[in-house]
Amino acid sequence: MEFNEAVNARRSIRTFTAADVPDTLVAALIECAMKAPSSMNGQPWRFIVIRNVETKRLLAEIKDRHCPPEKREFPAGFLQEAPVIVITCVERARAYDRGIESGILATGHLMLAAADHGLATVYLSAYKIGAPQVADDIRSILEIPADIDPVTIVPIGYPGGAAEPKVLPPADEVIFNEAYGRK
Amino acid sequence: MEFNEAVNARRSIRTFTAADVPDTLVAALIECAMKAPSSMNGQPWRFIVIRNVETKRLLAEIKDRHCPPEKREFPAGFLQEAPVIVITCVERARAYDRGIESGILATGHLMLAAADHGLATVYLSAYKIGAPQVADDIRSILEIPADIDPVTIVPIGYPGGAAEPKVLPPADEVIFNEAYGRK
Repeated sequence: MEFNEAVNARRSIRTFTAADVPDTLVAALIECAMKAPSSMNGQPWRFIVIRNVETKRLLAEIKDRHCPPEKREFPAGFLQEAPVIVITCVERARAYDRGIESGILATGHLMLAAADHGLATVYLSAYKIGAPQVADDIRSILEIPADIDPVTIVPIGYPGGAAEPKVLPPADEVIFNEAYGRK
Repeated sequence: MEFNEAVNARRSIRTFTAADVPDTLVAALIECAMKAPSSMNGQPWRFIVIRNVETKRLLAEIKDRHCPPEKREFPAGFLQEAPVIVITCVERARAYDRGIESGILATGHLMLAAADHGLATVYLSAYKIGAPQVADDIRSILEIPADIDPVTIVPIGYPGGAAEPKVLPPADEVIFNEAYGRK
């Protein structure tokens, strides 16, 4: 589809149909993810594709265990309904101190590529700065070495529902000229 | 253009022609940026559009002053050649502890939208975790309040040159199944 259509189609969706997402399609989404920019073009990305139901259950359990109180309206149990989950990781030695940035940019591409194929996704973090236990728990169940940082968790499937219409603020409330607050 | 074309067109470019990028086009790119996901749909973004040459010079000076030795092959002076620079900031109170993520995801959208319009960009960080002076120096010249975090600096213009072809690693070196390292 057109670029703008893909951007508009990408919405945070937490319900999926039972329809499978084949490996070839997952690989195409990951190829798009790797076309994101990365510091010094280090391309530090590694991706883990999860289809095992027990692994999905463990991931949901970790996310819920570390969920801050103000976000508990979004429990992670729905991860078990997604046909596939992609974990985006970065290899610290290739990340030039910007692994989080490279991981997030690749994830943004992955989600837009999914939307371009009619797929639904939602963004979940796989780490928290200052709280290393989140990433360590994920490392443990996915056998991720200590020099590799998991950055995001993205469930992917065909949408089981639609999102509410997106409402953006008026441009003049959020765009300033030359200095903050100057219109 | 098609989604995939825009993804392929987006490359890190540091030379720009003198052609202007009008405000209406910059606003369209920012609208696309705001269609990125954000934690709890907080939409914490604020954007500062820079056209003033002296401000561009000061931004380049700050980036060069804080540049780590291994990245000095990319000095920031080229920022002065870009017709426009967009600084993406996030309001901490709306960011739900994920301001960096939301800022980076919006920036990814902004860069792809620019590519969709034939424009060139490159990603620069406006902060460094553990080194608050970078963001503070940027806050100072752009009058950004203490509760707002600058996240990225993106120069935008029509490309003054082409990037080298992008080379991606073989998929089976970077995609694992069910656990890290498992093929």
